[in-house]
Amino acid sequence: MTNTMRANVFHGVNDIRVEQVARPRPGAGEAVIRVTLTTICGTDLHILRGEYPVRPGLVIGHEPVGVIEELGPGVSGYKTGDRVLVGAITPCGQCLACLSGHLSQCGHGAGYEAIGGWRFGNTIHGAQAEYLLVPYAQANLAKIPDDLSDEQVVLLADIASTGFSGAESGGVKIGDSVVVFAQGPIGLCATAGAKLMGASLIIAVDADDRRLQMSRRMGADVVIDFRTSDPVAEVMKLTGGVDVAIEALGTQQTFESCLRCLRPGGTLSSLGVYSGKLQLPYNTIAAGLGDHRIVTTLCPGGKERMRRLMNVVRSGRFDPTPLITHTFRLDQIKDAYRLFGERTDGVLKVAIRP
Amino acid sequence: MTNTMRANVFHGVNDIRVEQVARPRPGAGEAVIRVTLTTICGTDLHILRGEYPVRPGLVIGHEPVGVIEELGPGVSGYKTGDRVLVGAITPCGQCLACLSGHLSQCGHGAGYEAIGGWRFGNTIHGAQAEYLLVPYAQANLAKIPDDLSDEQVVLLADIASTGFSGAESGGVKIGDSVVVFAQGPIGLCATAGAKLMGASLIIAVDADDRRLQMSRRMGADVVIDFRTSDPVAEVMKLTGGVDVAIEALGTQQTFESCLRCLRPGGTLSSLGVYSGKLQLPYNTIAAGLGDHRIVTTLCPGGKERMRRLMNVVRSGRFDPTPLITHTFRLDQIKDAYRLFGERTDGVLKVAIRP
Amino acid sequence: MTNTMRANVFHGVNDIRVEQVARPRPGAGEAVIRVTLTTICGTDLHILRGEYPVRPGLVIGHEPVGVIEELGPGVSGYKTGDRVLVGAITPCGQCLACLSGHLSQCGHGAGYEAIGGWRFGNTIHGAQAEYLLVPYAQANLAKIPDDLSDEQVVLLADIASTGFSGAESGGVKIGDSVVVFAQGPIGLCATAGAKLMGASLIIAVDADDRRLQMSRRMGADVVIDFRTSDPVAEVMKLTGGVDVAIEALGTQQTFESCLRCLRPGGTLSSLGVYSGKLQLPYNTIAAGLGDHRIVTTLCPGGKERMRRLMNVVRSGRFDPTPLITHTFRLDQIKDAYRLFGERTDGVLKVAIRP
Amino acid sequence: MTNTMRANVFHGVNDIRVEQVARPRPGAGEAVIRVTLTTICGTDLHILRGEYPVRPGLVIGHEPVGVIEELGPGVSGYKTGDRVLVGAITPCGQCLACLSGHLSQCGHGAGYEAIGGWRFGNTIHGAQAEYLLVPYAQANLAKIPDDLSDEQVVLLADIASTGFSGAESGGVKIGDSVVVFAQGPIGLCATAGAKLMGASLIIAVDADDRRLQMSRRMGADVVIDFRTSDPVAEVMKLTGGVDVAIEALGTQQTFESCLRCLRPGGTLSSLGVYSGKLQLPYNTIAAGLGDHRIVTTLCPGGKERMRRLMNVVRSGRFDPTPLITHTFRLDQIKDAYRLFGERTDGVLKVAIRP
Repeated sequence: MTNTMRANVFHGVNDIRVEQVARPRPGAGEAVIRVTLTTICGTDLHILRGEYPVRPGLVIGHEPVGVIEELGPGVSGYKTGDRVLVGAITPCGQCLACLSGHLSQCGHGAGYEAIGGWRFGNTIHGAQAEYLLVPYAQANLAKIPDDLSDEQVVLLADIASTGFSGAESGGVKIGDSVVVFAQGPIGLCATAGAKLMGASLIIAVDADDRRLQMSRRMGADVVIDFRTSDPVAEVMKLTGGVDVAIEALGTQQTFESCLRCLRPGGTLSSLGVYSGKLQLPYNTIAAGLGDHRIVTTLCPGGKERMRRLMNVVRSGRFDPTPLITHTFRLDQIKDAYRLFGERTDGVLKVAIRP
Repeated sequence: MTNTMRANVFHGVNDIRVEQVARPRPGAGEAVIRVTLTTICGTDLHILRGEYPVRPGLVIGHEPVGVIEELGPGVSGYKTGDRVLVGAITPCGQCLACLSGHLSQCGHGAGYEAIGGWRFGNTIHGAQAEYLLVPYAQANLAKIPDDLSDEQVVLLADIASTGFSGAESGGVKIGDSVVVFAQGPIGLCATAGAKLMGASLIIAVDADDRRLQMSRRMGADVVIDFRTSDPVAEVMKLTGGVDVAIEALGTQQTFESCLRCLRPGGTLSSLGVYSGKLQLPYNTIAAGLGDHRIVTTLCPGGKERMRRLMNVVRSGRFDPTPLITHTFRLDQIKDAYRLFGERTDGVLKVAIRP
Repeated sequence: MTNTMRANVFHGVNDIRVEQVARPRPGAGEAVIRVTLTTICGTDLHILRGEYPVRPGLVIGHEPVGVIEELGPGVSGYKTGDRVLVGAITPCGQCLACLSGHLSQCGHGAGYEAIGGWRFGNTIHGAQAEYLLVPYAQANLAKIPDDLSDEQVVLLADIASTGFSGAESGGVKIGDSVVVFAQGPIGLCATAGAKLMGASLIIAVDADDRRLQMSRRMGADVVIDFRTSDPVAEVMKLTGGVDVAIEALGTQQTFESCLRCLRPGGTLSSLGVYSGKLQLPYNTIAAGLGDHRIVTTLCPGGKERMRRLMNVVRSGRFDPTPLITHTFRLDQIKDAYRLFGERTDGVLKVAIRP
Repeated sequence: MTNTMRANVFHGVNDIRVEQVARPRPGAGEAVIRVTLTTICGTDLHILRGEYPVRPGLVIGHEPVGVIEELGPGVSGYKTGDRVLVGAITPCGQCLACLSGHLSQCGHGAGYEAIGGWRFGNTIHGAQAEYLLVPYAQANLAKIPDDLSDEQVVLLADIASTGFSGAESGGVKIGDSVVVFAQGPIGLCATAGAKLMGASLIIAVDADDRRLQMSRRMGADVVIDFRTSDPVAEVMKLTGGVDVAIEALGTQQTFESCLRCLRPGGTLSSLGVYSGKLQLPYNTIAAGLGDHRIVTTLCPGGKERMRRLMNVVRSGRFDPTPLITHTFRLDQIKDAYRLFGERTDGVLKVAIRP
């Protein structure tokens, strides 16, 4: 057994390198998995471009599927060789935030920490590597049923968990009308989530033909290409105001358009990552008197969330595999970043096989 | 019986006049009450100043206590002479919004209408008059128990119903920490509402000594005078981030301060009426990843809401009478508006006796 | 225009007759519709057999589709000739129960009345007739979109609204495991409702081959024939305890079996109509310490509910038409009752065309 | 440092002995506290009488206040000497149940286990001892603010957490009417919980003068002595049916009386521990059509729950100290059990000082 491994290391803006680094060993309550499949997330692009700062030297990536290589003391019910899925968010389960049900805002044993549940490729080494140390392993190792492949579960770690949460936090009910702004991987999963929860009209908005096509496959009843139509006007014509609007991009335009599509009493469920100031025009919320709700959600994690999402895939009610359009080896990861960043060749998600 | 009555009529900006107008008669499903007590609301000041447009010729005011004078066809279970409280918001109970539980966004038999439940002194004649026509009377006439005086219930029509809803929509739970920005009549009732729902720390923010004193009486554990302290810094020092922040003024500063006081996963419950654009700085909501909620609420109405609020007063757990600092006759109403508008003499709410 | 109509009148136990009765005329707030399609419900069988008492002389039936014939004063937004669906439950929208959101326990303008929302064929004349008087018409006339046939909507009035509510009251979430005991028309719709809400494993229990076949069509992943398997043992083997168990029959055995299938913290959602005492063995609820919930639900009604359910049918996510296995004319209704009562010829629901 | 300690050991039915036993040492993730105050619970009486089986040799008791003596590896943020409160229920925070928010049904790292969160004095050694091993210490050690005494917090571990949960699970809202059957320590805390959550009418039922007196102090507006009045008839006369009925004893009579007091759509929140079969007469739940809810709750635990409850005590809104009527030393614990079991001398709760 060697003490090193190959990993994709962030060195600075536009500088990632696959290189040899120390292989992790688990401490108490931790596990190390051998990564068998992972992906690149839009957030990794933000890191690469310097738009989201992480420390140089960090291994990035946060969507791991793998096999348990080694278990630290105090982790029970698992054994070496178990195939596991680990969520992008790794709650400790034991801090004030976790015990209040706010797993994504995990304070690691203490109180609350904003976005504290996101550690992989952010504050600790990530998944674009041969091996990965999993903190709070007892709460985060989700065994993969034998009848599910790595490809069927890898997108549950982040994309599907986040996308579905758009519908869940929005409180979608049977018979609701829902609009989803932006049909990237997360928006597509939000569309699928709205369908899973019983929406009777799902409107998907984007400007990319392939994504709009895929949105129909994920459950959209109507698609709007904002290059050729005014989405707010179209949505209002179709519905008179939707029950739930889901934002899946992170821009002023999509945020504000969501608000303009809501009926009085409606909910904007926001998944995007924003920068700078957002404007909240007073007339979009009836000057504060329209009984509106705005809800933001970070990807839910933990092994129970992963277990549930894997069961959804097993039921056949949601199939994430069409979203994986390309696969690369770890040593080709720069090409994978380029393709993913340039959005060419109809790319949605790329899988990385260490 | 005369066909006219005295009423306070809006004629234009800064032009209200108590004059003789036609006395209303009830149609099907309607009632007419003889108003025995009413008040002036901050919204009435906005109308007077031209900041909220209503049609000239309209009788204004929306907080009525009275005695049933006449019942239209189809209203059952009431009789002439019954003392009743009518909420500021008069839902029809039979439109899509009402049947969905969004009573304040009542669409009057059809779909949803933003703020559609607010009709008195907005789209139909209001309560600053000797008589008042009550629409959808079956849903809106709340009989007053004999052991409650007019003074004990008049503020339930709007102020208390709105203020309490700040705590209710915020989802205050036993043991929560809550900050309430602004301690005008609505903010004071939000403070009382947070106490009623079991908050264990209530922080009230204002810059008026009398209001801060009153906030202690309504349940505040800590008061912050923003003339001498930075309320956000103080709240963060005391709590590390509150569970619920209630906005009760309607300005960029209070809205943004509320966001800055929230813990990750916390809720901003907004009661204010905003004008112009609101800024939502991305760092106040962890760039959209902090699991925050922003909820706006319009005053809940309907006879069931009024019945419940009257029971709260009967229980002795909330006493609104200290909030009525002055009383005027209807023909003195201009003086009342002046006092209320200038916020002199420690005024909180003025009662008007037609 | 004649003053009489044909209707199915209850005269006593096992004595119903299609005969000429007075044709209804609408009062204030009421409407009369010409019934174009209706059905027979299991409850009508209970009435026929004397198991549920109604007064002799009553026209029975409570699932009406029709065309507006006449509108009483005070009903707006409709016109003669509009095609409408009316729910089995007709809330007034204006009593304390309705204004609290408990539409099915409508007290008709006053307080609460147990099952008070159910009036058709119970306390007022019902739908198995050429014409039907609709009370509280403003709250209960749901216009049928042109692209939906009578057959597509008639089961929404009761069966689908009730069945879906089993999943809704059970709080089914994405990824839940659900068992549904009994796959009659309501159980089949409960199965469909669990699927609509995102359950990842739906287990249907019955002892009728055709019903078990139909349950797969409605969304069941696994079916259990209780003639050949022990359903509780099977469910526990498959799941270790379900998140939600739905009872759709109304017997001690199905009620208790549901409890025995629940995981700690699980919910029994009960739709059945019980007679006599139910036993609640203490070990099924961990002696009261298992954080269990038992929820009962009466069919939700009102035009907003009907609008939502029609939208679900339009979306193609639920098709109720396979549940209508037979159609009869009004004057053949005795044959229809016989077939429905004997459960022969694979009958699920029979439609009646006046 | 000695290796033994004094502890109250269960040896068999009616046989407990204070004796010298091995002093615990913490493993990974565990802590040992020196117990400074504990109590006897009704459940301990059940154990003593053989009504709830535990293994002979077990130290019993589950309501610990103490000082950290030793910390095992992997517990951070605490130090020897910290004063802590530990809930009766000690969730791991990392199993499927805990990650789903069902902390009391904790499966200890795996799935769900009914009542699995209750370990002290049930499946592991308990608190009636000089020292106590705390499992999952990171999730269960709640630091006690300096301004709170041991006496102020000891009842939060079980009694207050359970009692409040009766109101919380019942969903008590501002203006609700609530009846609480039985005013022992848990029922008294349920009364206090209903008050904390804004109930406007709280009716307490018992047959013990001192307990009824105390119930007024805890928030009851009306008390009913069932020796002299029929509580169901009285409650119906006062309210016409309550919104929430809380059961705090665990008998057929109190369970059924609660159901008979509910309005349609009301909730029975059950805290009692039942034995044998419960009867659920069909007419108490409108034959299953009354939109009723029955909810059972086990004491919520974990350090976040304890933190919140301590904040409630600090706020002055709830004072548990009057419920401690007697104090004994550990070596007098047999006398304490006798007094508590015989309910003489007005005993409510006895405190034990090791």
